[in-house]
Amino acid sequence: MNIGIVGLGLIGGSLAKAYKKAGATVLGSDQNNLTTEFAKMAEAIDGELDEAHFSKCDVIFIAITPVEAIKWMEQNAPRLSRETIIIDCCGTKRNVCKAGYDMARRYGINYLGGHPMAGKEKGGFKHSSADLFDDAPFILVPDDHNNLNLMCKVKKILQMAGFGRISFSTAEEHDKVIAFTSQMPHIVSNGFIKSKTAILHNKNMVSAGSYKDFTRVAYLDEKMWTELFIENRDNLGAELAALIAELQKYQQALEDNDPEELIRLLKEGKECKSKVDKLCDLNSLEVKQEKSSKATASS
Amino acid sequence: MNIGIVGLGLIGGSLAKAYKKAGATVLGSDQNNLTTEFAKMAEAIDGELDEAHFSKCDVIFIAITPVEAIKWMEQNAPRLSRETIIIDCCGTKRNVCKAGYDMARRYGINYLGGHPMAGKEKGGFKHSSADLFDDAPFILVPDDHNNLNLMCKVKKILQMAGFGRISFSTAEEHDKVIAFTSQMPHIVSNGFIKSKTAILHNKNMVSAGSYKDFTRVAYLDEKMWTELFIENRDNLGAELAALIAELQKYQQALEDNDPEELIRLLKEGKECKSKVDKLCDLNSLEVKQEKSSKATASS
Repeated sequence: MNIGIVGLGLIGGSLAKAYKKAGATVLGSDQNNLTTEFAKMAEAIDGELDEAHFSKCDVIFIAITPVEAIKWMEQNAPRLSRETIIIDCCGTKRNVCKAGYDMARRYGINYLGGHPMAGKEKGGFKHSSADLFDDAPFILVPDDHNNLNLMCKVKKILQMAGFGRISFSTAEEHDKVIAFTSQMPHIVSNGFIKSKTAILHNKNMVSAGSYKDFTRVAYLDEKMWTELFIENRDNLGAELAALIAELQKYQQALEDNDPEELIRLLKEGKECKSKVDKLCDLNSLEVKQEKSSKATASS
Repeated sequence: MNIGIVGLGLIGGSLAKAYKKAGATVLGSDQNNLTTEFAKMAEAIDGELDEAHFSKCDVIFIAITPVEAIKWMEQNAPRLSRETIIIDCCGTKRNVCKAGYDMARRYGINYLGGHPMAGKEKGGFKHSSADLFDDAPFILVPDDHNNLNLMCKVKKILQMAGFGRISFSTAEEHDKVIAFTSQMPHIVSNGFIKSKTAILHNKNMVSAGSYKDFTRVAYLDEKMWTELFIENRDNLGAELAALIAELQKYQQALEDNDPEELIRLLKEGKECKSKVDKLCDLNSLEVKQEKSSKATASS
């Protein structure tokens, strides 16, 4: 199996290490030549990925930002083979998938949008690791949901890197959901830590788990996230507006010194959490059943 | 060592189990007789704590809500011994400490405010466990910071239950800081999960760590938290207002399609996170040094 990787940051670097560990041959490139050289020296890649090698790759992962990914596809589409599967790893999907689907139709290439749901607070090749994707979800955004053959192949390739559940989505649904599940925690965490009390608490007191959980992702690459936020500004703006409106209700109840209203609001949130968790449990039950039936089948 | 515990919920139940494990004799009581009986049967307590046993206790922990704790102290102060240390475990401190200090002065009792910084999403005796406080912080709020003798004694008693860092605070500072570090994550998490997208995401896609961290504490006991929120409404209201104002800046930058402003806002948050983390590291360095010098001294 030959794997090509464009961009050797946290995601690309971790993909390289994971596929190397799984026994694949990995070719990679980064816009920063030093990173490419370092990845070679660290044996995360077997060699540099250049145009001459494109057609040797079974898959090429594009692990750069959406704007760069679109540029890369526009420049390189004519040199890509029909035998190579192209998967981008961008955190927003509508723009990059539109460009990818167009390219795929024009040049007869196999392209799927993708989103590996894993990360760390700090990016770059130096923070990449072979186990970043162990049991992590991967969302695939194919143009043609009927191409089962292609999707089965891709699923197996992703499982080689350690991914657990592979799920499927449209670009529109992906971007709507991701605004809530990933972009919002990052933006709220980043805003939350700006409270003047943040400094005070560390001088004098230690804090419990909820604070740690809440501020874990406040540290982020502001340029990368800005690109993703701006791309998804319709969905993210709607989520922000909804949260602000909700927080204003709690604020009003506190201002009114109204415990009944506060109880009602908190109970409502508790019930939502319960409902969502039940759906989550059902989902993971499905995954477990899928995995155990696979284990039974292969035993 | 004889430990008395008033209230056998998550905190009181876990204290009981931790002290039993450490070899102490534990007497406990709960307003629900069935809970007291169950705790006896589960051998979390050696017997029921009633008035007749108050004077036998080296310490009595009051692990009920602030309003109930104040009521308990008013009712029982005349029957408490000067030899027994009284520590409440309430999540807000100004009201309960004022009542406790008054009682202590009037009856010559040793009372300290306290806050064990540990918890679980689900409360009650059935979720209590002997290891809940392992290495957890405990904030002590003594009236007289000069009574070193008493504070040293209390520190040792708390370490028996597994607590790691014991820190000291005033009631005012505690309530200000706790509004940010603990109450805010609970209220924001509880509001966040109400997004209409919450249900959608579970039907179709799994989520990464940031979502899980962000919604962990959305499930909460609405009555207990309402009492704590209302008690601390000045501090909590100010934190909520600050976060809403901050989120509105991101919202405006998205609405204006202004990546420069968004980069500036995210960088500002990243720098705050860095600064606060550095202070945290210094704090935990101090704790480690304290622990290692203790280990050296005892070896």
